[in-house]
Amino acid sequence: MTVTIKDIAKKAGVSYATVSRALNNRPEVNEKTRREIQKLAEEMGYKPNALARGLVTKETKTLGLIIPDITNPFFPEVARGVEEAAAQAGYNVFLCNTNWLAAKEETYLEVLEEKRVDGLILASVAKDCDVVKRVIKRGTPLVLVNRVLKDVDAHYVVIDNNKGSFQVVEHLLGLGHRIIGFIGGLAHVEATRERLQGYRLALASAGIPVDEDLIRLGTFKKESGYENTISLMKDCKKKPTAIFAANDVLALGVIQAVQDCGLQVPEDVAVIGFDDIPFAAYAEVSLTTVAQPKYTMGEMAAKILIEEIKEGPSKEKKHVVLQPKLVIRKSSGKKR
Amino acid sequence: MTVTIKDIAKKAGVSYATVSRALNNRPEVNEKTRREIQKLAEEMGYKPNALARGLVTKETKTLGLIIPDITNPFFPEVARGVEEAAAQAGYNVFLCNTNWLAAKEETYLEVLEEKRVDGLILASVAKDCDVVKRVIKRGTPLVLVNRVLKDVDAHYVVIDNNKGSFQVVEHLLGLGHRIIGFIGGLAHVEATRERLQGYRLALASAGIPVDEDLIRLGTFKKESGYENTISLMKDCKKKPTAIFAANDVLALGVIQAVQDCGLQVPEDVAVIGFDDIPFAAYAEVSLTTVAQPKYTMGEMAAKILIEEIKEGPSKEKKHVVLQPKLVIRKSSGKKR
Repeated sequence: MTVTIKDIAKKAGVSYATVSRALNNRPEVNEKTRREIQKLAEEMGYKPNALARGLVTKETKTLGLIIPDITNPFFPEVARGVEEAAAQAGYNVFLCNTNWLAAKEETYLEVLEEKRVDGLILASVAKDCDVVKRVIKRGTPLVLVNRVLKDVDAHYVVIDNNKGSFQVVEHLLGLGHRIIGFIGGLAHVEATRERLQGYRLALASAGIPVDEDLIRLGTFKKESGYENTISLMKDCKKKPTAIFAANDVLALGVIQAVQDCGLQVPEDVAVIGFDDIPFAAYAEVSLTTVAQPKYTMGEMAAKILIEEIKEGPSKEKKHVVLQPKLVIRKSSGKKR
Repeated sequence: MTVTIKDIAKKAGVSYATVSRALNNRPEVNEKTRREIQKLAEEMGYKPNALARGLVTKETKTLGLIIPDITNPFFPEVARGVEEAAAQAGYNVFLCNTNWLAAKEETYLEVLEEKRVDGLILASVAKDCDVVKRVIKRGTPLVLVNRVLKDVDAHYVVIDNNKGSFQVVEHLLGLGHRIIGFIGGLAHVEATRERLQGYRLALASAGIPVDEDLIRLGTFKKESGYENTISLMKDCKKKPTAIFAANDVLALGVIQAVQDCGLQVPEDVAVIGFDDIPFAAYAEVSLTTVAQPKYTMGEMAAKILIEEIKEGPSKEKKHVVLQPKLVIRKSSGKKR
């Protein structure tokens, strides 16, 4: 069904080489012939084969972006930043969604590399970093975004999770809360560890011992925020008066759970999230949260990647740590 | 930097052909040699070239999915349906976001086709369908999703927009509203036309003449919903007591605009959206809206596409029209 150069050559009554030269705008063919062959190719529905062409040019003008959760509005905002920076530099972006599965992340790394994308931007969920290390070793330009991978020497653009989290707990302490729950995501993800670290640090700074029973980890999905909050409110000897959720989607689950326990946000339980997704401001109880510069995160990752593609490997990997900003809305309530 | 079959052959002291056979598990090479060469290839970091392989097998086990707006939670839900159905059949999905730009849609159609994806799923924003027609003519399996394209003979999976929209206006009429505004998206998109048609039809059925001044079209973004509502509330001689927004993201903008005019939802102005995005239920004023089976839409599109890839072109294009469902929450208010 596919029209080949051979088909065009046959119809035009010229050689394969002539058609190839004409279609590639090479000088060895005269202007009139070139135009005629190009017109014929157009009419016949000829489609240059990028696979074949990619073998020659070694460049595909395509970037791969791998994210864990397209349904969490945080990641689409990052993706928009990547896309616009990429478009300005003439690159297209293939977005791949791993749905929090490390196996899927591996597959997409392999598939994108096999498709010879010029570079990769990865928001990883992997526990084991061997695949990423192999990708970097093979020389494929790669930038990590949103979360760093331990022991992997790569460019990255992340936020200062520890600091953002410290600000959240500091704010709650300032409002008079002393029993503060922590609802986190996947335990092995660096962002969870860092956000938990900030929580511990802020409590320690205030001389409040950490009650491990107040800390519940799960996934980064709303359902996990809901379930962990229900169990937290039922099991805990000292009921929390405030809950810090490690992302906004979790926080929506937390609010729903608090309400389903017959309590009110923020009157009975103050709630704070992390990310500042576009819907945080419009929630039933508008969400106090840590704003991440999501678009900038994607934009900077794309720029670093494209620079490496164009200039070759840099001597030292670039590490960008963006600054978090606490946005105070209704869900954290007034001073007690 | 890339390790080739030639490099492996040199290191192993065997021919290019032997290495190639060993790596492709061909019978012409003995077991021991095959294992040794495969081990060596692994150690040297050899990566089979999918570009070259694709030229031979003509199959890439990859689908392309083109959507207009990754930041509108409707589309990520559709994408999840596509991905899961694709994964079950062994396909990976490259997602491309056009940001409502027809030119970007054209580019991605071309790029994905050049990459020889096995099939395409397209939520189009194009005015001119020539590119899509060319893609279909060349025999690339394609399924339209969310919106049909006039004059294009293609498989599609859409919702009955007309009916959903009729239900919205019928509900508002039942609540006693007689002056109902319509805030729509892009005028040339079929979904806008169909939703507007349902609006007109419902009014006509109730014997209420359509006031064209109450109809405002723009884009599908929240900002457009906001601005059109502000102008609607300021300019209209007869102020609307209810507004139907053609999607939920627009509806969030409508609610904000109504509040910024010093009015309340639903007491002063009732608001209804379309889509039932996951955040509609958690909004400050929980949103009455038309639920679309988003996940199913993506899932069915992927299944139809994969069937065509495997079985070849079907005699007649498949047309699936899913049923809308009105979900009544707070934003539409009580009977007046």
